[in-house]
Parts: sequence; C-alpha cells; structure tokens
Amino acid sequence: MFTASKSSLLDALKLVGQIVERRNTIPILQNVLIDLWGNSGKLTARVSDLDVEATIPFSATVDTDFRGFTVPAHLLMDIVKKLPDGADVRVEAADPDLGGVNIKSGRSRFRLPVLPPSDFPSLEGSELPFTIDIPSAMLERAILAVQFAISTEETRYYLNGIYLHAAPTGVKLVATDGHRLSKRFIPLDDVPQEMPGIIIPKKTVETIVKHLPKDGTVTLQVSDAKIRMLIGDMVLLSKLIDGTFPDYQRVIPTHESFIELEGKHLAAAIDRVSTVSTGGSRAVKMTFSGGTLKLLVSNPDAGNAEDEVAYEGEAELETGFNAKYVNDALARLSDDGLQFHLGDPGSPAVLRADGDHAENLIVLMPMRV
Amino acid sequence: MFTASKSSLLDALKLVGQIVERRNTIPILQNVLIDLWGNSGKLTARVSDLDVEATIPFSATVDTDFRGFTVPAHLLMDIVKKLPDGADVRVEAADPDLGGVNIKSGRSRFRLPVLPPSDFPSLEGSELPFTIDIPSAMLERAILAVQFAISTEETRYYLNGIYLHAAPTGVKLVATDGHRLSKRFIPLDDVPQEMPGIIIPKKTVETIVKHLPKDGTVTLQVSDAKIRMLIGDMVLLSKLIDGTFPDYQRVIPTHESFIELEGKHLAAAIDRVSTVSTGGSRAVKMTFSGGTLKLLVSNPDAGNAEDEVAYEGEAELETGFNAKYVNDALARLSDDGLQFHLGDPGSPAVLRADGDHAENLIVLMPMRV
Repeated sequence: MFTASKSSLLDALKLVGQIVERRNTIPILQNVLIDLWGNSGKLTARVSDLDVEATIPFSATVDTDFRGFTVPAHLLMDIVKKLPDGADVRVEAADPDLGGVNIKSGRSRFRLPVLPPSDFPSLEGSELPFTIDIPSAMLERAILAVQFAISTEETRYYLNGIYLHAAPTGVKLVATDGHRLSKRFIPLDDVPQEMPGIIIPKKTVETIVKHLPKDGTVTLQVSDAKIRMLIGDMVLLSKLIDGTFPDYQRVIPTHESFIELEGKHLAAAIDRVSTVSTGGSRAVKMTFSGGTLKLLVSNPDAGNAEDEVAYEGEAELETGFNAKYVNDALARLSDDGLQFHLGDPGSPAVLRADGDHAENLIVLMPMRV
Repeated sequence: MFTASKSSLLDALKLVGQIVERRNTIPILQNVLIDLWGNSGKLTARVSDLDVEATIPFSATVDTDFRGFTVPAHLLMDIVKKLPDGADVRVEAADPDLGGVNIKSGRSRFRLPVLPPSDFPSLEGSELPFTIDIPSAMLERAILAVQFAISTEETRYYLNGIYLHAAPTGVKLVATDGHRLSKRFIPLDDVPQEMPGIIIPKKTVETIVKHLPKDGTVTLQVSDAKIRMLIGDMVLLSKLIDGTFPDYQRVIPTHESFIELEGKHLAAAIDRVSTVSTGGSRAVKMTFSGGTLKLLVSNPDAGNAEDEVAYEGEAELETGFNAKYVNDALARLSDDGLQFHLGDPGSPAVLRADGDHAENLIVLMPMRV
C-alpha cells in the first residue's frame, strides 16, 4: 500500500507517547489512523484520546490500492524505532479484506492486527471563529513560565489548565493552584477582543509545549469549546475545559515596596535548608531584616537548618513560604535582579524579574511558620 | 570537633546510597558512624545494614576534643552535596553532652540529632584465614559478566549471590537463576586451594562493583561465614550466604558442534521481533537451517514478527529461548565470533565468545515454542 522512510514515519508518530495510553479500555484509542492527506499524495497519522487529537502528515510512496487503516500505535512506533537508521518501511494489506497489515523492512517482517478507520473518533465538526497567530518561541516561553502552577486537583477542574484571554495589546496566560499563581503577557497585534477566555487542558499544554518549533508562527483557532493549533504541518485539535476561571486579578496584591536579591543565591540557600524537611511540611521561615534574609527550617525529627542571603531595599518582616513553591517560581524567573514584593506577614508575595514586562509575575501565598 | 573539605567528606559517604535505607525500623542503621581512624590523624565514616558494613577513611583537621558520634547518613550526605564546591565543612558538638552536632559551612548552619556510637553494630570479630589478591579490573569484568544471572527468588536463597571458589590456577565466579547460568574464570597465582567455596550476597556484589578502581589490586579475606574486601583505603565487610551452591558443572552441557554468528546482529533482530511480545511470555522461536537463523515471535493479540540472521557452521535445529535472556547473555559476551553450542531442541545452549577463555561461558535453558 505504501513505502515510507523510517525517519518520516517516526516523525509522524511523535505524539503517540503523549496522547495514546498503552492500555486502553477502548481498543480503537490504542490505534493510529493512517490515511490519505487529501489529494496531496502524502499520508497522515492521527491519534486521539477523545479530548485531544493530533494529525501529522508524512511523505510516502503511496500505491493506488491504498486504503486507510488503524494499527496499534505504540506497537508500530516501537517497531519503526528499532529498525536500522535509514531503513525504508513497506506496509501492505495482509489480505484482500484488509484484516491485517504486513510491515517489511530489510529481513524483518511483522504482521499487525487492524481496526476499521470508520471506528476512529473525530473531534472535527464545529466552527472555530477566532484566530490568533503567535510566534512559536514566545508561546513556548510563556507556557513554560506558567505551566508549573496548573492545579492537578480534580475537584477544581476549572484550574486544571492554562487560562488564555485577549488583552488590548496581546494575550495573557495564567495558571494557579490556589497556592501560587503565574501570569505571562504576550504582546500581539490583531487579537480579536471579542474572543472568549479559554482554559486549555493540562494534557494539551504538555503535548504542544514539547513540539513547538524555535522559529515560525503557531496559529490558534478558537471557539468557546475547542482549540485547533496549527504547528507547521501538524494539526492539534483539543477540547477546552468547560468552566469559569476565577477572577485572578483580585488575588494579585499591589505592594508598593520590594527588595531585590540574586535569585540563584536564594534558590541554592532554600535548597540547602530544605534538606532537613521531611514528610508533608516544606515550610521555610524567612526573616527580612537589615539587608539580610535569614532562612530557617525546623524539624523536630531531622534537625534544624539556617542560611542567609543578602538583599537590597527596605523590608523588616518575618514570614514563611513553601520552599518548593519558592524554588519552582525562581526557576521561571530571570536570575539577576529578582524582585520580592512584600506586604505584611500574612499577605501573598509577588515575584518579578527586573526588566521583565510588568504583567509577568508569580504570586506566592504565605505559610504559617 | 573537626573540619573537612566537601569533597573528602562526600567521598567517605559514597556507600550511603547503597547500604543505608532512608527509612529503617532500627534507627541506628539510618546513621553513619564518624570516628577516629586509629592514630592516623584521619577519621572514618562507617555505614552498616547488619549484613554488610563499609568503612571509609577521610582526611580532616581533627580537634583534640573530638568524640565519635553517629548522625543520619542520608541527611548528612544530602547536606554536604548541596554545599558549594570547594567548601569546608565544620562539625562541632552542639552541647557538652554531645546531644547533637552543629554543621557549619559558609553562611549555612545545620543542627542534626545524634545517637551514641556504642549502639552502632559491628560485623568484626571472627578470623578470616584465607587471602586472595585479585587485580581490580579483572574482578570487575568477571562480576559484570555473571551478576545478571543471580536469582532473586528468596526461596532459593543459596542462588541469591555469586558463587566464588578456588580452582588450580585461579578462581571461578558463577551465578545462576535456574534459567541461565554464567561462569567466569580469573587466572591467579597463589590461590589457597583449601579455601571454601563462598556465596557473596547480591547486595554486597552490587555495592563493590560500582566502586572497584580501574587499577590496583583488591584483597579478599575469607572465612566460611564472612568476606572482607580491601579496596584502596575502603574496607567492606560482609556476611556470606549460609547455604550450599548446587554442583553447577553438571548443568553445563558439552555439545560438540557450534555455529558462529555476529552477536550484535542477533541482538538487534531479537530486539525487533520481541516488540510484539506482551505480558509474561517472551519466547522467541529459533530455526537454524542452511546458514540462516530464522527468528519468530507469535502473539495472538499483537501480531507476528519474523527476522533472519546469517550464521556459519552446521546446524539444522528448531528450538526456542527467552528473548530477554538471550540478549542479557549477548550483552556480556564479545561481539565478534559469537559461538552458539547446540545439542538437540530440548537441551540447553552454551554461548561463548571466540578467543575468550574456555571456562568463560553462559548456559541458556530452552523454552517450548
């Protein structure tokens, strides 16, 4: 039916690992659909988990007797991976009824079971009226800066993704789990202001962020229920989370004063003192006084740990944070000139990097220590 | 009490990860014993799990008020690891009763709980009358070639280690799990022939093999119950498995004919056809005929796979093996000139590398296919 190179077929299967579960109660969802790409003379590989589907075209020498089919996706990917580099892969119908396919390469022969392509689910159908073009690198940077704050609590399903909404001069991406919140702004022209705010599910975010090219533009097509992402030739179509994202602007405090310190020094010191944390609590007590930030972790079982970091600016304050959350945040902000915006001991801190866009920030809720 | 560099203290703690469990019902076994190394002016770090104990000396500036103590081993190692490279570590008694120790480095301060050194267990005591010196690199090679065949079945505890015994011109190492057996010979002078055959436990084998130096000699001191290994300055003392290793020589067949093929081609082909294996069975059917070895895996659920490898020599035989076991064996034998010694379909195969010592071999039991 067709012949393709190992590399092009493997590229077409690159989302199998992220979208297809190896064991699935619905057999067709374990499969990849190989079909014609319109009249292009190319083929496409499509995988789906009913919430997100990816379609990737690939080059092949297609015989006139080609018919679409579905085969176990992980199995096909594992077979192709293990072929020698540079190999050609020949796929043929095993019998006239297409009850299976034969895969040949060199002296290797495989026979795989198939399921009919008509059983393969599709998310296509409804119109996606709003379009935004975003430079791929900017989208990747923004996703990586907010993704860590996505909630995994299923009861708060409306927080299980990244909230993306139009702003007058671009789009904003926000994620929060109630303990921390991260927000990024991407400046763009021509953003349709009437576009609804959407919540892109965590799995969809994880799937695309690994495959965004360094150059070029990603096109988002959006309705209030679905998003289609055109990333080069690849098309990713995903359901959105059907819920209301909270009015996040209300939880971002506007502290007037801030101190500045070197992020990597703080991160290393927090890493050291949290060595003595065991079990659930990861609280680190932070005392800002006279230009020295003192860190303290006390654990009745494992002992105590103290460290110090110098800072610039005015602050006399004793507060506490989850050590892991502080370091998660520091890892997403530029190293030099880290700003800690502080209020009273019970109020959230706002972390920003000096020179970064004013909208780019991370909010951390305090912990009692 | 003492000051040591990060690197020397970390080196002294290098066996913590392998010997000390992070959670242990016996608290003292979570600890490392830091004590004087006789009158050398150095200190030692000792860890134990009651079956194997390791003692590693390290350089330190030791104050006259030094007293031995034990602290949580993983905690100390984690703290030292996170200090900046090149840092000095200062350890002091927290109070006159040594109810804890303070650890200082730069602006970091830690206080760790201690347990009395008198509670720390010791395996020392009995005499170890037999001594063997083995070049470290030869010991490492031999262990790596047999270790994979050690049984993990607890009911066959006498197979849970490497059997080492004296031979007229060296020592032999053997491990088997009943499905495969691997044997290596190390030629040595002056091996005490009256030395009992010993079974070195799996954990002890794993612990030393990662720390054998490329050069130099390892000294083994052996009784019928314990082994002491002197590896540079490090001393590893281990209990032996108290059991009788089976008469392994009886399961090694002496087939007269063999075929030769390229190990890496066979390994790659087996890897490809076993892609369609799922679940428990990993059998691969092997048909030797007319210079072509045909490999076949049939799986009613996932499909079939076939491959071929050319061989030299006379063999007309249909047999079967566990695909994983064949590849485990191939990974331990030299690539070029792999010899497959075959009998009838039901008899074990013997794998050897052309040019290797005649005693070095791997036996594989066949599987019904």
